Amino acid sequence: MIWVNIYDMKLLEDALKGSARALGRLISLVENESHGFLDILKYIYPLTGKAKIIGITGPPGVGKSTLVAQLAKIYCRKNHSIGILAVDPSSPISGGSLLGDRIRMAHLFPEKNIFIRSLSSRGTLGGISQATMNVARLLDAVGYDIIIIETVGVGQDEVEIINVADTAIVVLSSGFGDEIQALKAGIMEVADIFVINKADQPDTARYVSTIEKMIHQFSNKKSWMPPIVKTIALTNQGCEELIEKINEHTLFCKQNKTLIEEKRKKNILEIKRLIERKIREDIDLFFEKKHSLENLYNKAINEKKDPYSIADEALNAFWKSCKEKMEKAAK
Amino acid sequence: MIWVNIYDMKLLEDALKGSARALGRLISLVENESHGFLDILKYIYPLTGKAKIIGITGPPGVGKSTLVAQLAKIYCRKNHSIGILAVDPSSPISGGSLLGDRIRMAHLFPEKNIFIRSLSSRGTLGGISQATMNVARLLDAVGYDIIIIETVGVGQDEVEIINVADTAIVVLSSGFGDEIQALKAGIMEVADIFVINKADQPDTARYVSTIEKMIHQFSNKKSWMPPIVKTIALTNQGCEELIEKINEHTLFCKQNKTLIEEKRKKNILEIKRLIERKIREDIDLFFEKKHSLENLYNKAINEKKDPYSIADEALNAFWKSCKEKMEKAAK
Repeated sequence: MIWVNIYDMKLLEDALKGSARALGRLISLVENESHGFLDILKYIYPLTGKAKIIGITGPPGVGKSTLVAQLAKIYCRKNHSIGILAVDPSSPISGGSLLGDRIRMAHLFPEKNIFIRSLSSRGTLGGISQATMNVARLLDAVGYDIIIIETVGVGQDEVEIINVADTAIVVLSSGFGDEIQALKAGIMEVADIFVINKADQPDTARYVSTIEKMIHQFSNKKSWMPPIVKTIALTNQGCEELIEKINEHTLFCKQNKTLIEEKRKKNILEIKRLIERKIREDIDLFFEKKHSLENLYNKAINEKKDPYSIADEALNAFWKSCKEKMEKAAK
Repeated sequence: MIWVNIYDMKLLEDALKGSARALGRLISLVENESHGFLDILKYIYPLTGKAKIIGITGPPGVGKSTLVAQLAKIYCRKNHSIGILAVDPSSPISGGSLLGDRIRMAHLFPEKNIFIRSLSSRGTLGGISQATMNVARLLDAVGYDIIIIETVGVGQDEVEIINVADTAIVVLSSGFGDEIQALKAGIMEVADIFVINKADQPDTARYVSTIEKMIHQFSNKKSWMPPIVKTIALTNQGCEELIEKINEHTLFCKQNKTLIEEKRKKNILEIKRLIERKIREDIDLFFEKKHSLENLYNKAINEKKDPYSIADEALNAFWKSCKEKMEKAAK
């Protein structure tokens, strides 16, 4: 039996009835890992699993926002309801440029069945990709059947964020030749579809063949070879084809045993991360209260100890304190 | 008393005598977190603290490698011994393009007092920035007095890696206007010096004033305002001035109380990370042996449990198993 407090329960009921305001507040609770957020996630979990989650990343300036807007429009026309999460891992403070994009985009869509939200919760214990997953589940539970996760960049953070998606799309453009240097293995492994946007640029053909070579060199995907879709998002060219490729990939994932196994491994990894996160909370609590790391460090520095030995001692103190926890668990 | 096994002790002795081969093997041990690596780090710790650690990052193509080569040459001429660590967080597999750069660079420097090494240890439990710190300490201990950490990109990984350095340099170039979008808070906060390379490009002046504005907007540094140094690394222009700025920053750090306090906090954070890492090892060990997460997951899926509840149960099992550990610690 999962227990959710009355206040959150009211929010949940309203969000499930379609209140964007209630959904927004739930997302904040989950994003900020506020008290009781795990209960909310446990409660909504049985309602999830219906949405298609699409991840989109790429270097700044390739036209991701325009592409996302076009995809959203097309899905809208097909009577889907769309949740868009703009995730900005590099910006803990300002909320980043994405939020601005989003606000501008919101004006393009007065439609009720589009929900747009920025996430930039760097500070959360579970990490940004876990927070993204949690919020995507919320959107899924309240009935958004297409969820687009957009993030800027091709670093490890972005790889982890779009790895949350069922289909990961990397958007590139021939104007960003130097970016290829930075792509390398991580992003090549995670991409299910490549989009070459601004395909009306003169050197697009050469660029496409470079990416093709990289796919053959780096792609680690068993049996699914990431296709390259050329788009001009500004004029909607290639966007329908992209959606077809997404559908092909969805179908493929449902039938392919290797990918089902991969998904299972992803789920197990998530559980492991949740466990680590909980223990990290315990550690934080322990070192906040009785034995502050500050004191421990000052004492050790006076004795000229190295950080590795200080950590050993601190951990020992932590284990001692675990007696209570252990006895409770043993009951 | 710190105990190091005989084989590692021999490597340590050779490395301290100047054997690059022994040092290389020690670095591999530390990078891969092989058995006994923490003992090595404890052992060498008292020998560290003499080197100046310089971190250099920036988007690909701005000319970081050329700049690093010029700095190394100048420091060489001033009779310093230089260790260069090229850290590539995005590439767990290929070793990345940096290694190639490094190999090419090695030919430029037949001098004995330059040691060049690539790191790309994504998989390590302690994380890439801890691994970088550990290897930098090794270089410091064996006598390299200038350590340059170079990494490509401006993402969170790169921020954490150059945060290991005493002086963090962000290299930009006016050809990378779009990159400014991606810079944002993280990198602006960590940079001690900005370098605008390829300063002979026509729009450099405008670019410099853009960066100046960003520094004023985002910089979080107390009292130290990051200077901007214009360079043309290819012809060595501005490189001496950069070294002067690095020296100024070093001097400033030694005298400024806020920065001394920041450094202390960094050290405490490192200890916390080391503690978390150790517990993560324990968790891994636990779930490898008795209660594999695999089994736990399969069982829970049959019972239609959500991942958050599965994690709770798994953690409970883990705490139960901690009895032994706790009793040992209580002695």
